[in-house]
Amino acid sequence: MRSRPRSNRQTFMPMSMDRIIARSACVCHFNGMFSQNPDDCVRKLGENELIERIRAWLGPVAPPAPYGMGDDCAVLPAVTTSRQQIITTDSLTFGQHFDASAHAHDAGAKLMNRNISDIAAMGGTPGPALLNLLFGPDLSLLWLEQFIAGIRQCCEKFGVTVVGGDISQLPPGQFTASVTLTGLTDSPPALRSTAEIGDTIYVTGTLGGSILHKHLHFEPRIKEGQWLAAHEACTAMMDLTDGLGKDLAALLPEGSSAAINLQNLPLSHDARECARKDSHSPQMHAFCDGEDYELLFTVARGTQSEIFEKQWQTRFPELKVSCIGRIVNAHPAGRYIDIESSEALPWQSGFEHFKQT
Amino acid sequence: MRSRPRSNRQTFMPMSMDRIIARSACVCHFNGMFSQNPDDCVRKLGENELIERIRAWLGPVAPPAPYGMGDDCAVLPAVTTSRQQIITTDSLTFGQHFDASAHAHDAGAKLMNRNISDIAAMGGTPGPALLNLLFGPDLSLLWLEQFIAGIRQCCEKFGVTVVGGDISQLPPGQFTASVTLTGLTDSPPALRSTAEIGDTIYVTGTLGGSILHKHLHFEPRIKEGQWLAAHEACTAMMDLTDGLGKDLAALLPEGSSAAINLQNLPLSHDARECARKDSHSPQMHAFCDGEDYELLFTVARGTQSEIFEKQWQTRFPELKVSCIGRIVNAHPAGRYIDIESSEALPWQSGFEHFKQT
Repeated sequence: MRSRPRSNRQTFMPMSMDRIIARSACVCHFNGMFSQNPDDCVRKLGENELIERIRAWLGPVAPPAPYGMGDDCAVLPAVTTSRQQIITTDSLTFGQHFDASAHAHDAGAKLMNRNISDIAAMGGTPGPALLNLLFGPDLSLLWLEQFIAGIRQCCEKFGVTVVGGDISQLPPGQFTASVTLTGLTDSPPALRSTAEIGDTIYVTGTLGGSILHKHLHFEPRIKEGQWLAAHEACTAMMDLTDGLGKDLAALLPEGSSAAINLQNLPLSHDARECARKDSHSPQMHAFCDGEDYELLFTVARGTQSEIFEKQWQTRFPELKVSCIGRIVNAHPAGRYIDIESSEALPWQSGFEHFKQT
Repeated sequence: MRSRPRSNRQTFMPMSMDRIIARSACVCHFNGMFSQNPDDCVRKLGENELIERIRAWLGPVAPPAPYGMGDDCAVLPAVTTSRQQIITTDSLTFGQHFDASAHAHDAGAKLMNRNISDIAAMGGTPGPALLNLLFGPDLSLLWLEQFIAGIRQCCEKFGVTVVGGDISQLPPGQFTASVTLTGLTDSPPALRSTAEIGDTIYVTGTLGGSILHKHLHFEPRIKEGQWLAAHEACTAMMDLTDGLGKDLAALLPEGSSAAINLQNLPLSHDARECARKDSHSPQMHAFCDGEDYELLFTVARGTQSEIFEKQWQTRFPELKVSCIGRIVNAHPAGRYIDIESSEALPWQSGFEHFKQT
């Protein structure tokens, strides 16, 4: 990885399903998430008893104090000086990042996987995590148990431990949870800010239509991220959360544009499915839809793409990688241009959260 | 510090103002926290612009990527192997931990100070933090700016940096924020689980009546915690968040009780003030009220209390320390007994969050 930092460009790990999922989050009492049955509500339990249950549900992924919950802080394992420690945080809010059609287990897995995907995007290995839960007193205990089971399954799969957390009360009908996740990298962490003009742009997997299924069932690209961070040709990397159209801007150096090869956009089956249902093209869905959780990365100019792609296929025969364009000098037509026609793409920016005009 | 761990007892960093502050959190539009004026609402800004503002308000305590916001993760500074890394998280919810009478600056400071107090309770030095903000679209930008200013002031005072975070949307009229804070200890961290029968029980400062003022204006005991963690006589430590009556249980080994010297309970002015206003004693307020954010610690049996207290006074001449009792063999009368009469104290447990019978 190139290590020269460039700008203070930031993203604060934003979200994007808002566009698609209805925003009204309050006073929902359906699908078993909130319960009218007093015996199935979190309010039935005292705080300590509730926390004991959550620890029991987490099982072996919740180590005892001082390396886990049970003291004022958790003690983190020592880090050898050859490794770099990284940290990220991401939230999951009912009505915003999932709706009542989602199974509790999938929602819990999504929360943890969102954070693991951030660790993957730096080339790291996930480690200890902290969990903040905020919910109304009418949250179903059964739902919460399944939510925690989803978190536990991800933790077991990726070697994550839950070492601390916090519970707090919201008004009835509401739920939100945050995870803060630490990680370690062996190689220098893969950054967003180190791409240069002339680098080619790659993406893993297929894009678009995540709302139909994948936003709850994606696979964080941990092994792929580690391989890329250690690969001398990889110059910058991030994960796709808000959609290519918004996220790619974060990889572009100042004074550059991205020339996109629309033919090479890896369209997911669900991008085509969404296109069949609305007036947009599958390419629009692949370019603009959020929550792909694939890796977006750049490869140094001068790299022989055939060799790089062959190395990839040897290492990851089951996961497609696609060269979708190149970073070029800033083009008068716009930030994203069609590599064939040099005309601006019709989708120059992604969705902006909070703005309501 | 003794280093032998004991139990899996946990607390999950609970909260306690609920008893005192009204729980209704929803649909509040007063005191400038939520605004009907479109020009003063967070919804006026796009997410990126809002995050740019928050970064600008944080100023020098928000370092650039890769050691701060702006990439998928933040890179943490390397830790020398002689130091131990610790981590904690704590939330602040409108209607639960502060109400509309609180100034935004004080609310922000409280959120950060709650976490710093947890670091103090382990004998640590606070370091990089992450900030999760969740709020309705009608949150006042002016209020948010002042909230962030309160966070910044604490960060500058204690050397904390904000290296990452997340913003998420709640229904109108709502606000909650979480901080995850890392820290380092030079001495082995001071734990809760290492007290033994025969140890004496100490507390810093004065207790009770925090609701009148101190819960928004307390001083995390960082230097005191570091000094105690390095002191060979100190056997266990925690900070007082839910009130002595609830928190002390976490320091007691199995098969023990606490013999309390009620004459030595350090009554705050506000404990007396609260007692004047209600039917309870100042001792009840000192024993049961939450959010003192003082240090509760134990001193090894056999330590000469005069020498220990003189050392304290030399090092911290402005902060009182009080010996409030001793850990004794489990007493049939109860967990907390009067050291003079050996009768049970009337207050055997603290407040339990979420339980509503």
